[in-house]
Amino acid sequence: MKINGEDKQSLWFDNNTLFFIDQRKLPDKIELFKARTVEQVCYAITDMVVRGAPAIGAAAVYGMVIGQNDAIKTAELLKKTRPTAFDLFYAVDHMLSCIQNGEKPLDSANMYLDDIIQRCKRIGEQGDSIIKDGMSILTHCNAGALATVDYGTALAPMRVAHNKNKKIFVYADETRPRLQGLLTSWELFHEGIPHAVIADNAAGYYMKNGDIDMVITGADSIAKNGDFANKIGTYEKAVLAKENDIPFYVAAPISTFDISIKTGKDIIIEQRSEDELKKYKDVEIMLQETPVKNPAFDVTPSKYVKGFITEEGIKKL
Amino acid sequence: MKINGEDKQSLWFDNNTLFFIDQRKLPDKIELFKARTVEQVCYAITDMVVRGAPAIGAAAVYGMVIGQNDAIKTAELLKKTRPTAFDLFYAVDHMLSCIQNGEKPLDSANMYLDDIIQRCKRIGEQGDSIIKDGMSILTHCNAGALATVDYGTALAPMRVAHNKNKKIFVYADETRPRLQGLLTSWELFHEGIPHAVIADNAAGYYMKNGDIDMVITGADSIAKNGDFANKIGTYEKAVLAKENDIPFYVAAPISTFDISIKTGKDIIIEQRSEDELKKYKDVEIMLQETPVKNPAFDVTPSKYVKGFITEEGIKKL
Repeated sequence: MKINGEDKQSLWFDNNTLFFIDQRKLPDKIELFKARTVEQVCYAITDMVVRGAPAIGAAAVYGMVIGQNDAIKTAELLKKTRPTAFDLFYAVDHMLSCIQNGEKPLDSANMYLDDIIQRCKRIGEQGDSIIKDGMSILTHCNAGALATVDYGTALAPMRVAHNKNKKIFVYADETRPRLQGLLTSWELFHEGIPHAVIADNAAGYYMKNGDIDMVITGADSIAKNGDFANKIGTYEKAVLAKENDIPFYVAAPISTFDISIKTGKDIIIEQRSEDELKKYKDVEIMLQETPVKNPAFDVTPSKYVKGFITEEGIKKL
Repeated sequence: MKINGEDKQSLWFDNNTLFFIDQRKLPDKIELFKARTVEQVCYAITDMVVRGAPAIGAAAVYGMVIGQNDAIKTAELLKKTRPTAFDLFYAVDHMLSCIQNGEKPLDSANMYLDDIIQRCKRIGEQGDSIIKDGMSILTHCNAGALATVDYGTALAPMRVAHNKNKKIFVYADETRPRLQGLLTSWELFHEGIPHAVIADNAAGYYMKNGDIDMVITGADSIAKNGDFANKIGTYEKAVLAKENDIPFYVAAPISTFDISIKTGKDIIIEQRSEDELKKYKDVEIMLQETPVKNPAFDVTPSKYVKGFITEEGIKKL
């Protein structure tokens, strides 16, 4: 991804240290978070220094490098950080089997990282094939380079379309409670892609007005039947897209498909802290005594999905 | 409404002064805003010291009392404050005709206020008839006593049901960008009604989970065919309610029905300042350069409405 014109990744490993662009600080400032211990990697995942299923997977493989001397224990700790992102479990198990097969952990991790980057790049090319010049596209949450290491999943096709000089406009849901829409806006700003941030409540307004031609989101976990978990609110946008005859696509690498899960009913939904609604950074938006519920993800049934944009093509389950 | 156990109204007129509970300061603190000039009343409406269609109408009638010496000019100024709330135009025209008929403006205004309060009380009784013991009800924005003077529209049936010892639970959408869900939570807290504030994105999650039995919202303007304008996001919740077979009701006094407007296409939608998304009070949530769109209302087609809860009964248009 471009940051002030330079090519960057959301995370990288150097000199036994895992460097993250600290996503808690964006878009206000670009700060690095450095993890040198397994505990620090776990903290970065839990506290959302890094977020987005593929990026969490990438962080986890380097967590396994750092904790290779006690790989079983490291795997346990990493798997406890967040329950919904399938890539996390996929990545940790992959590293475990590499280590058990006698491969060098750092080589395996670097290959995993390169592989994610290449898969996202191909997702971009596949997705670009369905984006027409002049289209307006809605996205929810951030499924960009920040969520993946580079290129993104949902944003990858928009990057490719923009680089091919297609005129596109992106509506970015602000995505309460964590406002990941601002990460999307930050990425689009650095790529020069025209866009606007809207309240999550306004997505239906623009769909009904005929202002949105397509919806593309990412996914945190996809069941065998095509039901998928993604950031809270995705289900709402999918229902609204169907009601307004707007095609709804999910962009995700094959590693997000969890064929051990038959349907969305078996996906575990993380409930996160009330403070995510009650505070913005250090500012209290709500009184501490306000009762709050805060599910982090929802499950969208397969029937709302027009297609899954993967590195191997666009699939309908 | 109860505030710390005492009966209060959202606004009242005394000694040539219109007193408002300043809704910009809630739920942090209870502060009064005093308007002694027409300009101050207009400011209170525009800047949302007072909001909610019936409460705006009530503010406007006392604006006409304050500006009675130049009633035509006062009416013009008041009508320019906000474009979508039909009650505003209804109230101003009502006062103009009272003044032209030689009635005393203050008597007319007091009667208008009493009338709103009584209508909301009856809306509560009508709406209570469809609330069963044990129900969970979703509401969007604040259509409570703060939005109406007393009792509320959408919240009135919940107050009556609660006072009859029906066990109910209220899901309050936080309602970005202005977070009026916090006003709803504040009212429910003072009434002792169990509830939780949720991100607007989470309403679909709870509907799909079977946790919500009914949706009740207010309305800012209702067209002849039953299409209605209400706070941005209402359309989304209505579509989701339909998709999940949950009855969706609109609670509003007859004064909100604008029979001069045939369908929702003719309702003017107010676009408000970008700062409503970008700032929370004085804190910048988004960078100033973030492109933002901020429609304040949306229009929900009549087909999504199970019934209109009015002071004269529950109607289907």
